[in-house]
Amino acid sequence: MQKRMQSLPLKNVKIDDLYWSRYISKVPAGLDYQWEALNDRLPDTEKSYCMHNFKVAAGMEQGEFGGMCFQDSDVAKWLEGVAYYLETNPDPALEKTADEAIEIIGKAQQEDGYLNTYFTLAEPGKRWSSLRDRHELYCAGHFIEAAVAYYNATGKDRLLKIICRYVDLICDTFGGEEGKIPGYPGHPEIELALVKLYHATGERRYLDLAKFFVDERGKEPLYFDIEKNRPGYTSAFDPRIFNHTYYQVHAPVREQDTAEGHAVRNTYLFTGVADVAYETGDESLLKACETVFDNIVQKRMYLTGSIGSAAAGERFSADYDLPNHSNYSESCASVALAMFAKRMLEIKRDAKYADVMENALYNTVLAGISLEGNRFFYVNPLEVVPEIADKSTDLEHVKTERQKWFGCACCPPNIIRTLASMGQYIYSADDDNLFVNLYLSNEATCKIGERDVTVAVKTRYPYDSGVEIRVKTDSDAPFTLALRLPGHAFLNRIVVDGAPAHEVLEKGYIKLKRNWKGESVVQILFDLPVQRIYANPKVRADIGKVALVKGPAVYCLEEADNGENLGAFELPDDAVLREEYDETLFGGTMTITAEGFKVADDGDSSLYRTTPPRKERAEMKFIPYCYWNNRGKGEMLVWIRREVK
Amino acid sequence: MQKRMQSLPLKNVKIDDLYWSRYISKVPAGLDYQWEALNDRLPDTEKSYCMHNFKVAAGMEQGEFGGMCFQDSDVAKWLEGVAYYLETNPDPALEKTADEAIEIIGKAQQEDGYLNTYFTLAEPGKRWSSLRDRHELYCAGHFIEAAVAYYNATGKDRLLKIICRYVDLICDTFGGEEGKIPGYPGHPEIELALVKLYHATGERRYLDLAKFFVDERGKEPLYFDIEKNRPGYTSAFDPRIFNHTYYQVHAPVREQDTAEGHAVRNTYLFTGVADVAYETGDESLLKACETVFDNIVQKRMYLTGSIGSAAAGERFSADYDLPNHSNYSESCASVALAMFAKRMLEIKRDAKYADVMENALYNTVLAGISLEGNRFFYVNPLEVVPEIADKSTDLEHVKTERQKWFGCACCPPNIIRTLASMGQYIYSADDDNLFVNLYLSNEATCKIGERDVTVAVKTRYPYDSGVEIRVKTDSDAPFTLALRLPGHAFLNRIVVDGAPAHEVLEKGYIKLKRNWKGESVVQILFDLPVQRIYANPKVRADIGKVALVKGPAVYCLEEADNGENLGAFELPDDAVLREEYDETLFGGTMTITAEGFKVADDGDSSLYRTTPPRKERAEMKFIPYCYWNNRGKGEMLVWIRREVK
Repeated sequence: MQKRMQSLPLKNVKIDDLYWSRYISKVPAGLDYQWEALNDRLPDTEKSYCMHNFKVAAGMEQGEFGGMCFQDSDVAKWLEGVAYYLETNPDPALEKTADEAIEIIGKAQQEDGYLNTYFTLAEPGKRWSSLRDRHELYCAGHFIEAAVAYYNATGKDRLLKIICRYVDLICDTFGGEEGKIPGYPGHPEIELALVKLYHATGERRYLDLAKFFVDERGKEPLYFDIEKNRPGYTSAFDPRIFNHTYYQVHAPVREQDTAEGHAVRNTYLFTGVADVAYETGDESLLKACETVFDNIVQKRMYLTGSIGSAAAGERFSADYDLPNHSNYSESCASVALAMFAKRMLEIKRDAKYADVMENALYNTVLAGISLEGNRFFYVNPLEVVPEIADKSTDLEHVKTERQKWFGCACCPPNIIRTLASMGQYIYSADDDNLFVNLYLSNEATCKIGERDVTVAVKTRYPYDSGVEIRVKTDSDAPFTLALRLPGHAFLNRIVVDGAPAHEVLEKGYIKLKRNWKGESVVQILFDLPVQRIYANPKVRADIGKVALVKGPAVYCLEEADNGENLGAFELPDDAVLREEYDETLFGGTMTITAEGFKVADDGDSSLYRTTPPRKERAEMKFIPYCYWNNRGKGEMLVWIRREVK
Repeated sequence: MQKRMQSLPLKNVKIDDLYWSRYISKVPAGLDYQWEALNDRLPDTEKSYCMHNFKVAAGMEQGEFGGMCFQDSDVAKWLEGVAYYLETNPDPALEKTADEAIEIIGKAQQEDGYLNTYFTLAEPGKRWSSLRDRHELYCAGHFIEAAVAYYNATGKDRLLKIICRYVDLICDTFGGEEGKIPGYPGHPEIELALVKLYHATGERRYLDLAKFFVDERGKEPLYFDIEKNRPGYTSAFDPRIFNHTYYQVHAPVREQDTAEGHAVRNTYLFTGVADVAYETGDESLLKACETVFDNIVQKRMYLTGSIGSAAAGERFSADYDLPNHSNYSESCASVALAMFAKRMLEIKRDAKYADVMENALYNTVLAGISLEGNRFFYVNPLEVVPEIADKSTDLEHVKTERQKWFGCACCPPNIIRTLASMGQYIYSADDDNLFVNLYLSNEATCKIGERDVTVAVKTRYPYDSGVEIRVKTDSDAPFTLALRLPGHAFLNRIVVDGAPAHEVLEKGYIKLKRNWKGESVVQILFDLPVQRIYANPKVRADIGKVALVKGPAVYCLEEADNGENLGAFELPDDAVLREEYDETLFGGTMTITAEGFKVADDGDSSLYRTTPPRKERAEMKFIPYCYWNNRGKGEMLVWIRREVK
């Protein structure tokens, strides 16, 4: 395999971007808010119990375990977010809070290294007895990620040592050898984390354990079947929904050729599989990643970069089954899809992976959080009618307003840790290449081979189509600056230091191979028109409909701009799509307006009639999907009907 | 209130009808099949346990209770169906089987009259402790219906006496008096049954109990809340779905103004409420029935006469929420809707109720059973893509082929008892009127006031638009023959004994007031064109779409005729709709063909693209909805997209 490209360290990337900074700037407040949640100090929200659980396990507080069996992971994701934030923004008070939390976590650790408050408090003596349902290895995975991030950010190894002790116990517990448990996690996550830990520590056994989990998964006889047939095993999960595909054990990983089951589990799993495939040079594993990724992107992904079209089991359903009003499309699943895509991009150097990564990040991940940074969506439909979604028991999972917190609060910290680490998605580098994957205004420093390079990107992408990149080196720096041509953009021209450049497009990247010296200015002009998107005609929910995008930003209609019954709009194929930048809306955004039709309320209250509905001319105003529901409750719609003849 | 009209006795109505007899003729085989099911003699089906339970309770067999807590009701509905069949078709062998079953039931009755095998076997000592969840009064209601029907059909009062003993116990147990339980059923049904028992026996206390159940329902403090707060009360039902509206206790019945909750419970309840309203002359109750009925018909009913748009809780959801692929639309709910409509029709003499009754019977009730009479749908979507419905966990409830039987087998016997009693829906009569509600070929005898009248109807409705009615009387018979103008028909002309008649249309009925003498021939010619139907634009699932009906028969596309991806079809507003009678198809049916378009498979496998899909001319062939899935598994679609410009 070709050498895998690497992200730049977060501390090397300073973002100041029109599209992103309004969200990233909310990270410190978001971390504070989450800390309050983890300590059950938010009013009128479901209790978290997180820190309570750790304090009880640490002997610092009396009480019982509260919350879900995977509650610990919320603390871990918060710590990981804190770490990413601290890496670029020194904040002694926050760091002190985190250090104190780490001490509590350390005290909650059992003598043999075991660290999971659910089993310590709620089911003592039952560790590892329910790998399928109880998320022990999942929580361990999140703590590994937190520990590595905190170590990278602060240089402090207290958490890393705590976690390594725990992982050493896990290594001693799991494996194919006599006396070890030949199992694997019901909720994958630890696989990708173990590879991070391997890189942070150089300990090969961590990679070996990740590989073991991947290799063992789906092998007959299934460990989960053995486990569930043991006396005393109980599970409240309906086996019609929580079946083998749900847990991605329906086949060995190398033989899985569709994206099945719980969407977050699936994409966390294949993120880790991609890591293991690369680290072990295993082409058959990498092939499975490519196949599953392609299945997602070609048949099972929403235009907004979300996945998991079925609510029952929060899972993938079937090819081309993409209902817009009842889907799950969990925020976490888009976070995970971006992670999976990032691995594939680094390994395959193909912009098709960056397209998906960008899509998930620009649309669903951002839709998951309010512009104020303190309200969250877990589920991300593309069509909402509050009067119906709030009443229908089939849409119980759809919230029509972002929530303050959740009893199962995986999404908020997942979004925050993603925002805090956006810098990792922008560039990929190796000794001879600097790939620009995403167009955010930022300044970055990096080493390309032995040369120090600084890059300053200025752009109003995706609202404007120009990008200026200043490349500075002190000495001769022969390397390739690879500029991604975004999926919905066309290249108009590239000018390097005033001279038009005619470069080759390779796997979606425009490659400027130069001996860079001093300061060069690269000016890119994309054509980034608003585009009409049509779905594959096999997508029953979207047939006869059209959606608008500008670059990665998917647009939607909202009731605040367009009145109610958005489904009544028709957008003619020849309607002019007028772009207008509104400085005041959502902190500044490009809107799109178009003349179309809207079925008129003709006063006929009958449910069925023999005359077709009358329609009248109507203007439509579109806003980026990620901003919906920042102006109160109302309808929202991404896929608009085309004009009926 | 005006006097309520009455059905003719079943034995007075002989049906020999193009549309119906192919189903009604399957009743005896269906009853045999069900008897096999009730005795667990069907191969490869979920076990019923019904007769087993009765035999164990009767001390005739060893074993434990099996099946659902409401399993007894399947036997009752079977007996009711047997009774209706025997009323028109003497069948000594079947009657002997039924008599033997009744003896077993009698032996299962407890000393004090109590009769419910679930509580007798599975939860002894806990009778009446869970009115909300355990269906005791529901099962009693079905036995009352069976007993009355069997007595009417055979003159044998064995079952009636058994049941009256049980109902007397119920009368002693429930009521507002000190020491009685002030409760009501979680699943209504007994209300309508008690009114039948009141008519069969003349015992006013049965009507009083029905009225008590209706009056008490929804009164604060709610009996169900009191019940559930008792020590030891357990319920496995998710309170977000199984909430107060689910059980129709969110408000007193008189204040309920929308159709809420479980669709079958709702419509059984309001069927009984209509009965109680009429018998007690209670206008406020009748008003509630009218309001709820109108809410169903104007905002919550499918074109196919089905109800219950949400699968979670098998229930009503919200106004205009009518998804076509994920709805519940239980066969039983359409049976119940026809019953509710029949009551309202008899009380209000308004054809709008007959339209709904006809719609439910001609479409969803028939769709619930195969043409061979031995396969059943429980759930009746209007759009099915088997590849998706068979895989999506959100569509677990949707079966893409009719089933042999169900663990919860309410629907098959409900359909059979309806087919066996179709005669009750055709006419309504009082001393001065004979209303013809449905146009089935049949011969009927009746008494209008003191005069004997026979009526012979010949028609190929809804395929042909002519109806001939021969009215015979021995003596002068001054009465009004009221002929319903069906909802989707227009009156072309009426000829009475060769002379054009110019009659008044009153509440949807053409009223021929005559002094009938000897034999008269009434010839009606409707215009019964295939019509395009459009939904109210608030129905998001149907906007931009059209459906075809011919009279009460809703049409659909099926994959067997049209290939796959039915959603890709477009039906232009000006396409000619050609009717053709196919003698060979489904035993003879009118088909509709039209020229339209179908989005072409252009070989582009991408999920999202910037060019609109190409389409090509394509012929569409429509069949009546009720016949779908009689030619193997495949797609089906009722609402077709209109042509996109």
